[in-house]
Amino acid sequence: MDGLLAGKRPVRRKISYGRKVDQVKLSPLEDAVDPEALRRVLDGRWEPVRQAARRRMQELRPPAGETGDVEEQRARVLEELRRLAKEGYPRQGFPKEYGGKGDIGGSVISFEMLGLGDLSLLVKAGVQWGLFGGAIQALGTERHHRLYLRQVMDLELLGCFAMTESGHGSDVAHLETMATYEAGAFVIHTPVESARKDYIGNAARDGRMAVVFAQLIVGGESHGVHALLVPIRDEHGRPCPGVRIEDCGPKGGLNGVDNGRLYFDHVRVPREALLNRFGDVDAEGVYSSPIDNPARRFFTMLGTLIRGRVSIAGGAGSASKTALTLAVRYGEARRQFDRPGTGTEVPILDYLAHQRKLLPALATAYALHFAQEELVTALHDLHGEDEVEDWRQRELESRAAGLKAISTWHATQTIQACREACGGAGYLTANRLPQLKADTDVFTTFEGDNTVLLQLVAKGLLTRFQHDVDDLGTLGLARFVAEQFAEALIERTAARSTIARLLTARGEPSEADLLDRAWQLQAFEDREKHVLEGLARRLRRAASDGADPFEVFNDAQDHVLRAARVHVDRIVLEAFVAALDRCDEAATELLGRVCDLYVLSTIEADRAWFLEHGRLSPATAKALLETVNELCKLLRPHARTLVDGFAIPPHLLDVPIVRYRKLGDPFAASLSRLA
Amino acid sequence: MDGLLAGKRPVRRKISYGRKVDQVKLSPLEDAVDPEALRRVLDGRWEPVRQAARRRMQELRPPAGETGDVEEQRARVLEELRRLAKEGYPRQGFPKEYGGKGDIGGSVISFEMLGLGDLSLLVKAGVQWGLFGGAIQALGTERHHRLYLRQVMDLELLGCFAMTESGHGSDVAHLETMATYEAGAFVIHTPVESARKDYIGNAARDGRMAVVFAQLIVGGESHGVHALLVPIRDEHGRPCPGVRIEDCGPKGGLNGVDNGRLYFDHVRVPREALLNRFGDVDAEGVYSSPIDNPARRFFTMLGTLIRGRVSIAGGAGSASKTALTLAVRYGEARRQFDRPGTGTEVPILDYLAHQRKLLPALATAYALHFAQEELVTALHDLHGEDEVEDWRQRELESRAAGLKAISTWHATQTIQACREACGGAGYLTANRLPQLKADTDVFTTFEGDNTVLLQLVAKGLLTRFQHDVDDLGTLGLARFVAEQFAEALIERTAARSTIARLLTARGEPSEADLLDRAWQLQAFEDREKHVLEGLARRLRRAASDGADPFEVFNDAQDHVLRAARVHVDRIVLEAFVAALDRCDEAATELLGRVCDLYVLSTIEADRAWFLEHGRLSPATAKALLETVNELCKLLRPHARTLVDGFAIPPHLLDVPIVRYRKLGDPFAASLSRLA
Repeated sequence: MDGLLAGKRPVRRKISYGRKVDQVKLSPLEDAVDPEALRRVLDGRWEPVRQAARRRMQELRPPAGETGDVEEQRARVLEELRRLAKEGYPRQGFPKEYGGKGDIGGSVISFEMLGLGDLSLLVKAGVQWGLFGGAIQALGTERHHRLYLRQVMDLELLGCFAMTESGHGSDVAHLETMATYEAGAFVIHTPVESARKDYIGNAARDGRMAVVFAQLIVGGESHGVHALLVPIRDEHGRPCPGVRIEDCGPKGGLNGVDNGRLYFDHVRVPREALLNRFGDVDAEGVYSSPIDNPARRFFTMLGTLIRGRVSIAGGAGSASKTALTLAVRYGEARRQFDRPGTGTEVPILDYLAHQRKLLPALATAYALHFAQEELVTALHDLHGEDEVEDWRQRELESRAAGLKAISTWHATQTIQACREACGGAGYLTANRLPQLKADTDVFTTFEGDNTVLLQLVAKGLLTRFQHDVDDLGTLGLARFVAEQFAEALIERTAARSTIARLLTARGEPSEADLLDRAWQLQAFEDREKHVLEGLARRLRRAASDGADPFEVFNDAQDHVLRAARVHVDRIVLEAFVAALDRCDEAATELLGRVCDLYVLSTIEADRAWFLEHGRLSPATAKALLETVNELCKLLRPHARTLVDGFAIPPHLLDVPIVRYRKLGDPFAASLSRLA
Repeated sequence: MDGLLAGKRPVRRKISYGRKVDQVKLSPLEDAVDPEALRRVLDGRWEPVRQAARRRMQELRPPAGETGDVEEQRARVLEELRRLAKEGYPRQGFPKEYGGKGDIGGSVISFEMLGLGDLSLLVKAGVQWGLFGGAIQALGTERHHRLYLRQVMDLELLGCFAMTESGHGSDVAHLETMATYEAGAFVIHTPVESARKDYIGNAARDGRMAVVFAQLIVGGESHGVHALLVPIRDEHGRPCPGVRIEDCGPKGGLNGVDNGRLYFDHVRVPREALLNRFGDVDAEGVYSSPIDNPARRFFTMLGTLIRGRVSIAGGAGSASKTALTLAVRYGEARRQFDRPGTGTEVPILDYLAHQRKLLPALATAYALHFAQEELVTALHDLHGEDEVEDWRQRELESRAAGLKAISTWHATQTIQACREACGGAGYLTANRLPQLKADTDVFTTFEGDNTVLLQLVAKGLLTRFQHDVDDLGTLGLARFVAEQFAEALIERTAARSTIARLLTARGEPSEADLLDRAWQLQAFEDREKHVLEGLARRLRRAASDGADPFEVFNDAQDHVLRAARVHVDRIVLEAFVAALDRCDEAATELLGRVCDLYVLSTIEADRAWFLEHGRLSPATAKALLETVNELCKLLRPHARTLVDGFAIPPHLLDVPIVRYRKLGDPFAASLSRLA
């Protein structure tokens, strides 16, 4: 495959060589940067929303150390949800006509900020206002909005988003719950065990109504999955006739959210219960839809729910920032082992291995924050337009899917590393890290399993987001690729002009210049292009020589996932470059080095690929390792500044490991500062 | 550095090239292998002990789904601990003279098996009998044994192992608690906040006595850390005078264990309270020790506590096996997405990405099991000898440290992957995975922080386990290396003759033969040798050109850790090869492929190094990826057999995801099989 392309891209083949270890020298950073300068860059376009959220959080009790049983936690979280409703938190995202502010971006950002506090509250809010309310808003029509949106905002009506079933989670198109139109009404039914709605938030305790996704059957004909409003509890909280509700019981985390299971035994709901924006049944029992192609209709419906994924990526980012702040602050206070020759003990963050655990993760947290900011902006602006071409909507969905996967995996790994970096103290619930880990663990699963999401991203890249291939099976996809995929297009998402300028200024690179932004951008673009084109070549075989398309696709699955990952890496880097563009003088140099660490630690983790494909020489690969070490050393004195830049409200960080002091007489009045 | 050595090792430089992707073809496996054949290989030398443990577990209630508050969990675990005591579980490891069986290996294996059940019980047993009882046995003398060992076994006396302090965990030599000899008694005192004993198991609720590690001061002179028996509660459970006890409160997991903090305010204990095997104070107040060198004395004391580390590695292995069994069984039952062309849905374990999540981890679980078996054997046999040279004891300690680190990190990563592989179902406490993850999370921290342990391993390799360098500082170590380290010795630990035979048979290899065991062994040996020699060269600089030795050592810390890791990899592979040697015909072929997957997925994860150092050509590295994929495909039909080989008692696996079935009328009598 190299042979095939080598001729085409001499430049790309050439960017690899040169630079030796001993040539890598970093100029020391100007000393202190004001964390406030970093906060301003991070807060970006939604600074007022973020600052308002920080103020609102003053009332929020720090979630550390909770252990009450599940029922107590659920009660407390519902109570806090009511406080949020009173404060008008939910209004941000709902339409003005119904008392909202219609600020999509702002609502996603407020949600993200909530993630700095109690993640059960975050998820409960997401279920009620994002998923339940969001589905009514996006899939329903004026009659539903008028009837329900106010009640949803005010919590007069608590509801569920009943999509996932025990038997079908990722494969939503094959849900088994049925909604059959009979005599002017829909009959909702759970025909088999695997069709029960599972893991449904608000179902076990608080929900009165559910948006139920089911196969719509009219006159014996199935029209695919549609959503209907189904009452599940009466005003006394008793299950409605024909509805069986089970409690999912305790979970690894998020025990403040009441997840449950729903079974429907021929439950009748009126014709108007159908959320009918994309498909309706008239009084004569005739089905109609503004979108003829059933697959396209289905994907359009799902597409309107994109906000959930964007929000989860933001929430994961908030949890990572909290964990990193705790670990960095402990790493500076905690000392272990004498420094030879001196009588003093070494702060553990001075150890290279400790820096390696935390600083690349911290750099990536910055990178993902900026990428999230770009994504929210795109979502907000696209929502503002009247006419949006399908492919742009699809591209946005693809970015949301990719960033959700990468951000939630990053949260899982980072919080785990922070827990370990805090040793035994990190294992105490009072220090928040165990709960952060447990609560965010399922983020990689819900709102779309990460592996499945990355496949969607790769498919989008292969098909250039053309809606009319959404209903392609694997074979169709392979055919499409065979016929229409010529070469990978690198569509820059952020800082287009800056990137173009950087690359032009650099001209034809003759060596790998690890700290040259242009080289870094080229390295990511080149990798994405090469991986995607290689994948396309592999898939063409599915269309040719009669191979079993499933086998071909499955054998290439690691290649498919890699194509999606490297694409997201590139988008994330572009967002970081855009942020460097807009930040004040004061922060530019420091953030530039953070960007270097993000890029080089990302390449380091994947450097085998760069070596295998002649993008890095062995000598340059070794220089890369040294440079990552040097960047860690360079940034270590600024680690505290970098986490302070997140501006997490202090009372949320007021935990024992942050209060840790070494000395003091344990038998004096004020005891056990650590306790 | 390549240049330097290239001339020396033409063979090693040559083992890299050749084999192309299309040449990698795997012969299909004979079909069914009886899991019983695997169980026999896995049970190995301690089969009777393991089988007895499985029988004993029938009474053990499956730990899934527990949510009672912390106090309830503690009470239940204590009750189960008493049942274990009644059944004679603790006798296995204690001396015959005091009613034990004196079977060290058997006691470690019984402990490991306990890890298949409730991990709080595992740790509580480890604290009481392994740490508290073990310290009395190993550091005390006949007078202590006679007084306490029976009570410890029978739980008439519950105790703590009070080593770790808030300020010093890894750096035990610098503990701050003081034991000052005054007028015929020792005064135990906590002089500063950071000197309080922290995270101490059995301290918050049940412990009556503690083995307290403190700086021994006699006549104003400090003799370093020694251990003393200190009563902490009276028979009514009230703290003794001068002893303050705090509860560490809820933790990320292991909430059945009552961890607490201990403060001592000038607590007097008699002279006989000193565990005096390695240091004593006579009636005249004169200190004496059989070991003059204080550093050597200290390391000898710590060395006797090796059993704890060996046991934790085993417990981590049991948890990984449970998680893998649950995930593989769910992966076979759970289906998602149609297989194009057929009307059937695909079992998720048929997806390459899913196989990649689980099968290399499963292969590694096998490898680590065999390495653990070798380690327990070495521990058992060494313990049986009268005279053991220090260096052999040190080598054993090094292997225990290395395997503890690698096994516990593997558990953390594997259980995490299994949780994600089970999606939402994996997040329900009822399915055990969340608790397995939470309970084992601290295994990477306690009994020695993994990063610190790997440094010990590397130091041992550099100094060839020569005790008289234990007290070398970094500078001394560097000097020692400069003067005495010529080249890395590869001391084979298991299957010595087989390996020698394999390597001889292979002769001078001319190409990388990925599936050739001899090539695999050579690749691991070669990597270890090269990494260690490179590290030695780096450290020599610390002795030369007046560089700050701490800086030199710290700048090389990633290199230090890598040296330890690749050493452990090699030892683990040798153990696997030894197991292949002794297993029945029936299992050989299957286990051989499992070994291939362990080796190649390990090399794959580190293939950048092999590429950077000319050990693999880009073409061979790509072939490696393909071969790992093919091995996953090849082993997938045998995945169930492989986990069944662990022979985990069925009632411990009787959880919803294992009972999962797709069909059935939800409104029939037997409801919600998944619930």
